[in-house]
Amino acid sequence: MNEKVSLAAKLALIDDQWRPRIVAAYNENKVVLVKVQGDFVWHKHDDTDDLFLVISGRLLVDLRDRTVELGPGELFVVPRGVEHRPRALQETEVLLIEPMGTRNTGDADSDRTAPEEWI
Amino acid sequence: MNEKVSLAAKLALIDDQWRPRIVAAYNENKVVLVKVQGDFVWHKHDDTDDLFLVISGRLLVDLRDRTVELGPGELFVVPRGVEHRPRALQETEVLLIEPMGTRNTGDADSDRTAPEEWI
Repeated sequence: MNEKVSLAAKLALIDDQWRPRIVAAYNENKVVLVKVQGDFVWHKHDDTDDLFLVISGRLLVDLRDRTVELGPGELFVVPRGVEHRPRALQETEVLLIEPMGTRNTGDADSDRTAPEEWI
Repeated sequence: MNEKVSLAAKLALIDDQWRPRIVAAYNENKVVLVKVQGDFVWHKHDDTDDLFLVISGRLLVDLRDRTVELGPGELFVVPRGVEHRPRALQETEVLLIEPMGTRNTGDADSDRTAPEEWI
């Protein structure tokens, strides 16, 4: 049976950046926590939307025609097929929801591609 | 195109309890905010898990064999088919994710059944 998940307790276990950790499963989706800083790679997911919720810090989601700035308690859904580049000027904690099996770097070739890993 | 969603700004628009408001869509799912206080009705969703994330306050999720207590920043996924009763001793703000079309009262007959409504 499922147990509750404290986002703060899970985040305290993460001491690296850009390496997403799965903390819960909801239907066919993964709930992921990740710490980010600097620029990620431009990518898109042709088959799925991407839900970002900022826990702390400030996340910039570059789109080709604008940048969406997210602070704590703000969420944004990148629609499927839309190119985006997450980036952060300071260390920022983000919760994401994506279908299980979604690659963090989408269609991009990148050394930031990470395996799916629970914490 | 999607806009960002401030959970605090949306919650400030809600002045009632047990009436969920949709604030975003992610694939076939709705992201919902609701303020709750008191006891909800026992129910289950045979076809879907139910993701609860507490924003403020304290949510008690009664299961038939135990109660899960959630504070701010804590989440819990009620697996499909599992009977549960959300309740709160004080007003509590909750974010839920469920498939679009999921009835808030699940399989229960209740006057708390609410329509799907965006805010």
